[in-house]
Amino acid sequence: MLLYKYMENLYEQSIELHKKHGGKLETKTKVPLLNKEDLSLAYTPGVAGVCLAIAKNKELAREYTIKKNTVAIISDGTAILGLGDLGPLAAIPVMEGKAAIFKEFGGVDAFPICLDTKDTEEIIKAVKLIAPIFGGINLEDISAPRCFEIEERLRKELDIPVMHDDQWGAATVTLAAIINALKITGVNKNDARVVISGVGAAGVATGRLLHSYGITKTIFCDSKGIINSSRNDLNKEKIELLKGSTNEEKNGGLEVAITDANVFIGLSKPNILTAEMVKSMSSKPIIFALANPNPEITPLLAKESGAFVVATGRSDYPNQINNSLVFPGAFKAMLDKKIPQFENKIFVTIAIALANMIENPTPDKIIPSMFDKGVKETVYNTVSSLSL
Amino acid sequence: MLLYKYMENLYEQSIELHKKHGGKLETKTKVPLLNKEDLSLAYTPGVAGVCLAIAKNKELAREYTIKKNTVAIISDGTAILGLGDLGPLAAIPVMEGKAAIFKEFGGVDAFPICLDTKDTEEIIKAVKLIAPIFGGINLEDISAPRCFEIEERLRKELDIPVMHDDQWGAATVTLAAIINALKITGVNKNDARVVISGVGAAGVATGRLLHSYGITKTIFCDSKGIINSSRNDLNKEKIELLKGSTNEEKNGGLEVAITDANVFIGLSKPNILTAEMVKSMSSKPIIFALANPNPEITPLLAKESGAFVVATGRSDYPNQINNSLVFPGAFKAMLDKKIPQFENKIFVTIAIALANMIENPTPDKIIPSMFDKGVKETVYNTVSSLSL
Repeated sequence: MLLYKYMENLYEQSIELHKKHGGKLETKTKVPLLNKEDLSLAYTPGVAGVCLAIAKNKELAREYTIKKNTVAIISDGTAILGLGDLGPLAAIPVMEGKAAIFKEFGGVDAFPICLDTKDTEEIIKAVKLIAPIFGGINLEDISAPRCFEIEERLRKELDIPVMHDDQWGAATVTLAAIINALKITGVNKNDARVVISGVGAAGVATGRLLHSYGITKTIFCDSKGIINSSRNDLNKEKIELLKGSTNEEKNGGLEVAITDANVFIGLSKPNILTAEMVKSMSSKPIIFALANPNPEITPLLAKESGAFVVATGRSDYPNQINNSLVFPGAFKAMLDKKIPQFENKIFVTIAIALANMIENPTPDKIIPSMFDKGVKETVYNTVSSLSL
Repeated sequence: MLLYKYMENLYEQSIELHKKHGGKLETKTKVPLLNKEDLSLAYTPGVAGVCLAIAKNKELAREYTIKKNTVAIISDGTAILGLGDLGPLAAIPVMEGKAAIFKEFGGVDAFPICLDTKDTEEIIKAVKLIAPIFGGINLEDISAPRCFEIEERLRKELDIPVMHDDQWGAATVTLAAIINALKITGVNKNDARVVISGVGAAGVATGRLLHSYGITKTIFCDSKGIINSSRNDLNKEKIELLKGSTNEEKNGGLEVAITDANVFIGLSKPNILTAEMVKSMSSKPIIFALANPNPEITPLLAKESGAFVVATGRSDYPNQINNSLVFPGAFKAMLDKKIPQFENKIFVTIAIALANMIENPTPDKIIPSMFDKGVKETVYNTVSSLSL
């Protein structure tokens, strides 16, 4: 009830803020336009020289135009926050917020593009058609499983980096926090038994990064229970995750999966993790309850049930798993260093670097906050060094 | 030769400017993002309140988001300045310049979208798919005749104003200047015999506005000579223009058309108007030589041949016919007043208002400069008053 009231107030205040400013972004001109001379350089006739140079050598678009530092934030509005499919117009405030974070935390100019379609092919086509002006593509709040094909195809068919943040942002920060959580519980990554609840965008990517990092004793659960090879309703992403897992296969629901596990990662829905389940885990349980805004279990109940480390997606509890740690610095480095495409290795390396930012991790501090000094620089330098 | 050297220097200086700044635009955040509290209003969880409000009432996107004040500048790069088809990457510097003018002269946030296609249907489709985030569409440097269908279709199929500036910007300022040129030569609009050379984007729109305003004694010439009903190679725009003309039909080239005319409007190519042609015109010839950067006749030769008023598209001669007088203020008013669509009446009314800004027109001052005080306000107030 208190939470409800708090949120209602926040909603009202946020509407006021958006109304007052008419949105959160504006364009700004970087060159003077005070007289005819200024105009003759920034616009006709001088600009023709820039156009002709680029026509001759297309690579110069990344030097002489906003393509150098501009990312598109693309959404179809189908998976807005925890709210679901609200359509492209209602998606705008989130994408503007994302663009604001891109700028303030990464120095990247980002522009929101909300698409009036949910069709996979139309989304791919639209992004390819508008790609010339952009130096990178950030996909956002596009529901699974369409998001997988859209990202995969765009990575192949475009010559600029493409990243679906709901997948890789969440997965990278989760891996970073897991690294430190294992450190303080003394469990080796090769031994860690990890249950992932929710096999949508974030769940699939988290699984992929865990496997890349070497955490392979994983059990994935979706709304129908444990994913295993006896099931015939699995999409290709789920089948692929099974291949990467080395755990013996189990059958049943979450309560079966979690027994004796070291780590629970929830990327699913509120209140599905019970006190009993936490108690059935191995010693020093690590609980990541990342459903937003209402987690799989409240941090209080998790702690009362024996959890040693708890992380959520929320800023009002310790250990917030926050995508915003990654994308501003990562995209800035991709643009500056002209790295052609994102790949798993980049995200794993960022995760390790973020984990290492915490010199002495404790149960209440396993991951930096986005306001901690050096986050952007750490991510930026990590990605930059991969281009050498 | 002097001009060539001057341009070469301008080109070099312009490239330097673009290189130094990495393009001419950036995004700017309008709300503070200094701490968790700021983020909880500009982004999650508070922003969910804004999303939910818009999902419930889509019209609120025009109050709470950048849709309120943002225009897309759409180009396929097929008609860049006087340079032709340079492709979407080489189009970016022009579109950025346009966006800068939108902001500095109109207070409108504009974002360039350069499309990787020349196909009419794909262009229409792409614009419709990305339209949710924008409050208006400025089409730019898209070659004729595709530009006509693209604009017409988008006006019908979108719920935001759409304007192809190469058509209506040029046409509106031309009409404004013609109004004052006729004033000082003492020719009534009903009697004025006007030859339009060039029947592309700007020529067609200029013809339409002249007719709307009541100047109907018009003869149009394209590269094959005078347009008349004996020709069977006319597109639908040219056929439509013939219907609006009341002049007796002529056959032949520009030299036939121009004999005894009061006004020449060139929207075609360099040096096609000869001294003899000017001498064959009625008394006090009005010469608009608007091909850029090299006009249909040099102002010097036109004057020597008896021209009474000369206008060009260039900023280094008197009477510059400059699109930038129109689009910043016009779009700002369309957005602020939520006027659903552009139509000829709006442009004719703007032209009359711009002409009236010059209290005592002279042969060297028939049209305001974009740096004159009050231009934006005049255009803005004119368009705004149409919404009442």
